[in-house]
Amino acid sequence: MSLLIVVPNRDMSKLQALLTHALPDVLIEIWPNIKNHAAIEFVLAWNPPKGLWQTLPNVKAISSFGAGIDGLMKHEALPEVPIARIVDPQLANDMALYILGQILNFKLRLNEYQTKQNNKLWKPKRAHNASKVGILGLGQLGTKTAQLLTINGFTVSGWSRTQKNINGISCFYGDEGLVEMVSQIDFLVCLLPLTEHTKDILNYKLFQNLPSNACIINVARGEHLNEYDLLLALQNNEISTAILDVFKTEPLPQDHPFWSHPKIIITPHASALTSIDTVVEQITKNYQCMIKEEPLINLIDSKLGY
Amino acid sequence: MSLLIVVPNRDMSKLQALLTHALPDVLIEIWPNIKNHAAIEFVLAWNPPKGLWQTLPNVKAISSFGAGIDGLMKHEALPEVPIARIVDPQLANDMALYILGQILNFKLRLNEYQTKQNNKLWKPKRAHNASKVGILGLGQLGTKTAQLLTINGFTVSGWSRTQKNINGISCFYGDEGLVEMVSQIDFLVCLLPLTEHTKDILNYKLFQNLPSNACIINVARGEHLNEYDLLLALQNNEISTAILDVFKTEPLPQDHPFWSHPKIIITPHASALTSIDTVVEQITKNYQCMIKEEPLINLIDSKLGY
Ligand SMILES: NC(=O)c1ccc[n+]([C@@H]2O[C@H](COP(=O)([O-])OP(=O)(O)OC[C@H]3O[C@@H](n4cnc5c(N)ncnc54)[C@H](OP(=O)(O)O)[C@@H]3O)[C@@H](O)[C@H]2O)c1
Ligand SMILES: NC(=O)c1ccc[n+]([C@@H]2O[C@H](COP(=O)([O-])OP(=O)(O)OC[C@H]3O[C@@H](n4cnc5c(N)ncnc54)[C@H](OP(=O)(O)O)[C@@H]3O)[C@@H](O)[C@H]2O)c1
Repeated sequence: MSLLIVVPNRDMSKLQALLTHALPDVLIEIWPNIKNHAAIEFVLAWNPPKGLWQTLPNVKAISSFGAGIDGLMKHEALPEVPIARIVDPQLANDMALYILGQILNFKLRLNEYQTKQNNKLWKPKRAHNASKVGILGLGQLGTKTAQLLTINGFTVSGWSRTQKNINGISCFYGDEGLVEMVSQIDFLVCLLPLTEHTKDILNYKLFQNLPSNACIINVARGEHLNEYDLLLALQNNEISTAILDVFKTEPLPQDHPFWSHPKIIITPHASALTSIDTVVEQITKNYQCMIKEEPLINLIDSKLGY
Repeated sequence: MSLLIVVPNRDMSKLQALLTHALPDVLIEIWPNIKNHAAIEFVLAWNPPKGLWQTLPNVKAISSFGAGIDGLMKHEALPEVPIARIVDPQLANDMALYILGQILNFKLRLNEYQTKQNNKLWKPKRAHNASKVGILGLGQLGTKTAQLLTINGFTVSGWSRTQKNINGISCFYGDEGLVEMVSQIDFLVCLLPLTEHTKDILNYKLFQNLPSNACIINVARGEHLNEYDLLLALQNNEISTAILDVFKTEPLPQDHPFWSHPKIIITPHASALTSIDTVVEQITKNYQCMIKEEPLINLIDSKLGY
């Protein structure tokens, strides 16, 4: 019986040690150092290499190393086994605080004041009168964020695939719901999983439906945003500002135009980091579920892709 | 019957027009253009010139143009009449949001990321694990701020002159209470009125009692802070950062060392601006109270100085 960690280009030795401690009877291996391919029953993966699954004939369960499973399915379909993801309750809090912090930073003009300080400029201005936030995705992260913004006095609406009913939040769904929601907001936050339906959802057509003072915040995946469309929309004043934590290519390449764009604020995929303790706890739990033939926790629907 | 506005070096014509509209039977004058000194019964003032009160024999009530009355008493004692201040409920909300925004900005390292972006540096870091806030002053602004921080998950303590009991907040008072409170916090927020007891309260001795990672936030008055002590405390790592919205001299002089200090964040007295509508409403109300010989609203205790 063994558990394989497949997260290329990242040091996984600490996680290996913690999992070995939590599951003392299980051999914890790190790809590509595999003793016996046939012994591997559980795989924890992110960006697995092409062809991996064919080398592992006895996989019974897979967990993504992230909150989404977009990192698992880049090359090929996954084996037909239960697929889980990491759900970190603290991560939802951190994400909600990050979004609140960025929204207040914009509203209070703190970046403007930092630039003014650099130039020794004393120019008080009233805070932006911006209080309407729309959230794409009302899952673990979107719902927590919506609730935090609501208790801070923001007017929040949210958009999901299926119809929802959440206290204090105007809920929208479907293509029409999206257009209706975004026409009325000051901030648009993307917290969708990356699927074939949500790729490029932040595009020029959507930006045209937003008020011209609107600020978009992408904290989901780089592929949700059409980068070319963003540059055009900022240039044409379709929207005013973009706050981005995720990018098509990470780290963002040195020659990328986003770095020095005056209307783009960049954080380096730092909005919410999963704690290693949560990963250990949930992988241990799911490994034991698999052994006992009980349902895994935090399962995803591989047809829906989230 | 007339009402005099005395706010030197500031254009008061809009306020004059609005007060004239609200009190059509009253002559609203702006210092130094006074028709008949003896007719003036009500004075709205900030930084009045020396000797003003001796020229106004029939003053029956005074209102400060601000939330504090420190701007009224720089030169000499005030006539012994009721003295009011402006209390803007929206201002307390704005102040609380400003402080939350600055705390999140620090916690999430948003300024660091802006500097990194300017240098095209991709270096994610975990957010600061800073969640304990101490507030000096538990009045209109301090209490509102304490409540907002509490619902956002911060652990809040507060300090006042008299003993207080506020749900969810650890309350301290007196000199010993101050030392006890500040030794345990990540952020120290000053929301005191400026009086002879609170002047220079942010001094080296206090900074030595703070943890070395602590960040101070002064949004009350510049005179609460000993500027020399701050520079020394930052240099000696007694505290880590200062966020300042108010200064001894405003605008902050061009050659002031705060402007380019890497551990000081400056906003230009912009944390919370009183709305002109509130001023008109409360001055109108207090003028009418004076006429009807009813008690004024938002009175201060001139012995205590707040
Ligand atoms: N930047 C970071 O550091 C970071 C950290 C963690 C996660 N993330 C990203 O955040 C994403 C969201 O995480 P989560 O845990 O909140 O996911 P989740 O719980 O699976 O929720 C996903 C939400 O998106 C909605 N959705 C999915 N497809 C849709 C579609 N085609 N149209 C409209 N709505 C759709 C779902 O609608 P229904 O409710 O109707 O199903 C659901 O409300 C993750 O997938 C990941 O990409 C980023
Ligand atoms: N930066 C800005 O834009 C801005 C805007 C508005 C106001 N302000 C400043 O904020 C200050 C506070 O406003 P506020 O409306 O909250 O005032 P407030 O309602 O009068 O409250 C003052 C608080 O300070 C406490 N206090 C006074 N003297 C003290 C002492 N010697 N030791 C300990 N505590 C003491 C009082 O204690 P007790 O409750 O025991 O009496 C009270 O809790 C104003 O005076 C003004 O200077 C700044």
